[in-house]
Amino acid sequence: MPKNTELWLAAEAALSAEDQRRLDRMLEYIREQAETFVGYPCRGRFDYSALHEFLKYPVNNVGDPFAPCTYRVHTREIEREVLAWFAELTHIAPSDYWGYVTNGGTEGSIYGLFLARELFPQGLVYYSEETHYSVAKNLRVLNMKHIMIRSLPNGEIDYDDLYETIRIHRDVPPIIFANIGTTMTEAIDDIARIRKILTDLAIPESYIHCDAALCGMTLPFIEGAPVYDFRAGIDSISISGHKFIGSPMPCGIVLAKKRYVERIARSIEYIGTLDTTLTGSRNGIAPLILWYALRTRGAEGFRQEVADCLSKACYAVERFRSRGIEAWRNPFAITVVFPRPPDSVLEKWQIAVHRNRAHIITMQTVRRQQIDAVIEDVVAAERAGANLERIKA
Amino acid sequence: MPKNTELWLAAEAALSAEDQRRLDRMLEYIREQAETFVGYPCRGRFDYSALHEFLKYPVNNVGDPFAPCTYRVHTREIEREVLAWFAELTHIAPSDYWGYVTNGGTEGSIYGLFLARELFPQGLVYYSEETHYSVAKNLRVLNMKHIMIRSLPNGEIDYDDLYETIRIHRDVPPIIFANIGTTMTEAIDDIARIRKILTDLAIPESYIHCDAALCGMTLPFIEGAPVYDFRAGIDSISISGHKFIGSPMPCGIVLAKKRYVERIARSIEYIGTLDTTLTGSRNGIAPLILWYALRTRGAEGFRQEVADCLSKACYAVERFRSRGIEAWRNPFAITVVFPRPPDSVLEKWQIAVHRNRAHIITMQTVRRQQIDAVIEDVVAAERAGANLERIKA
Repeated sequence: MPKNTELWLAAEAALSAEDQRRLDRMLEYIREQAETFVGYPCRGRFDYSALHEFLKYPVNNVGDPFAPCTYRVHTREIEREVLAWFAELTHIAPSDYWGYVTNGGTEGSIYGLFLARELFPQGLVYYSEETHYSVAKNLRVLNMKHIMIRSLPNGEIDYDDLYETIRIHRDVPPIIFANIGTTMTEAIDDIARIRKILTDLAIPESYIHCDAALCGMTLPFIEGAPVYDFRAGIDSISISGHKFIGSPMPCGIVLAKKRYVERIARSIEYIGTLDTTLTGSRNGIAPLILWYALRTRGAEGFRQEVADCLSKACYAVERFRSRGIEAWRNPFAITVVFPRPPDSVLEKWQIAVHRNRAHIITMQTVRRQQIDAVIEDVVAAERAGANLERIKA
Repeated sequence: MPKNTELWLAAEAALSAEDQRRLDRMLEYIREQAETFVGYPCRGRFDYSALHEFLKYPVNNVGDPFAPCTYRVHTREIEREVLAWFAELTHIAPSDYWGYVTNGGTEGSIYGLFLARELFPQGLVYYSEETHYSVAKNLRVLNMKHIMIRSLPNGEIDYDDLYETIRIHRDVPPIIFANIGTTMTEAIDDIARIRKILTDLAIPESYIHCDAALCGMTLPFIEGAPVYDFRAGIDSISISGHKFIGSPMPCGIVLAKKRYVERIARSIEYIGTLDTTLTGSRNGIAPLILWYALRTRGAEGFRQEVADCLSKACYAVERFRSRGIEAWRNPFAITVVFPRPPDSVLEKWQIAVHRNRAHIITMQTVRRQQIDAVIEDVVAAERAGANLERIKA
């Protein structure tokens, strides 16, 4: 490195002793919280220290990952490899897809819905009531007309309600926002059945976006799991990077049929690239993180991890039931649903709830001892008089 | 740390020798590119290694930074401190603001425009033709009606055109997207003058969002610089973190008047917090980066850095002119504009262009020797017969 830049950087002051203590306490807090982190679908620990050197540079994959750019402090080449891996995973031919690494689920959903809206400005969006809360806001941001469809008790979309609702709106193209794993119960909307509804109603134009935030990284590694990807006839998909793969910051990928994206592309002279992504400046560290995870763990590694998570999910359901608590899970799910316990238990274990349901998600870093401890806390709460409403899928 | 988690992590394979070489080459590439990085408003190097331990955890500041949340692996406390610092910088009282740390400029702009649209659904957006290219896409995403206003030769909005255009659309509330530093020439729209236009036209309701991506971190540290912040009567502002401050990933802050945000807030049971941010899951590392930078460099550090950058900008203009090339810069700007040189020069130095204008931006990490080298390359190109169109502000 040139000398004077180095000198310049060396001149940067260190944290004051007090601020260093603040930072140490913050790290200690994060470490403590990670110990009771069983309620969210995110891997609780990872090690990407091999990438630390990159954090010294203003890495920025601005604009389209497939186009050249005058901003050259970037990791586009790595990003394209990551996208190719996901394209293979979701069964779309190399010549047919386009995509990019996003800042997480919200951006993936907005992007899929944005493409759908540009294709079908009059389109009407259908999504189930169990859909992630952010989707309603995304629709508001995008100013899209939408109808919420009932959910079945297990969390899947109510196909009869969907059929009837589309039937009375056959004059506008349906845009289906499908859940491949709902937030609360990891329920999977049946894409084949949705497509059959569209065929039965002789719908000529439609769009299906799949939100496969978590399950996009589990189902491909489970034998006999439902087909939900481009083979099933979807138009775009988003999968999170900070969930099953694990990342210190939210990230993910979005993939779509290339011909849709070409319609919205606009060439930008300033950065010498195409303006096809939702965000302009884009995180170039996240693709490195995903690449590192894919290369070190690979399909076989993920397969083993998924098997381990599933086995812990079965274990949790059995243990709950052996203690008289009606826990259950959807087929192929690593989300274990049980009756909502008192707030003290929710608080302690960072457990998300929806109405009378709570869940734990047996990610790679959730240990059997933690599962046991959660169950003991729920049992103790019940014994202490808490009324656990009986729920059943 | 518990033993079995540690064992589990130890089981992760390292990169193969070939992949490690790939990664090494990628790092070498990034390092090389950083050496010719003079065309973008981003600090070219930094050191946040004090934060590396945090990268082992799924840090996520999901939802509102001011509300509690059941997802507790977060850095909200640090994020609020960062926001308080920026609130002071932009002169809004602690009780009056709301904001959050974003994924960068696009998110800040979309958020400001989204708030404006929710307040004034019939509003008409005005922005100058020199506005960052992403704003047109943001308006498309948000489905907002808009009119592009001419720019003055130096890059500021054409106030006469703005006056005349608002005058013939007095039936709808104007939403002004103001540039506090345009992308190409770092021109600053005069907020007082814009406000006077609104007053002169007796406009009862309006909204001003400031895009102060770069200058939000330079102008506060320059004596006599124009007032563009909440003192000037704006409604929201976004400032980038990966530009003047410097960050390995795009990030920034958005601040808005609290009462606007309260109108769009929605309580979400699932995460036990408020859904006031554009993205749901949010980067919790970026607030740490910003906090670290603010605490180690502080206002005095930034003041010195800005002075150094300005001095290099003056140096660049003088050196260009001494070689017969008509370079110029706006008052208070660290962006030095010069006639567009041949592509070989643009390519070598990662220089952004717009029509017949090119620029370099004398960030902290740009050295005088680099400035000299760019100028020599431009001079050599001219001597070799390149026709540098004379441009003038």
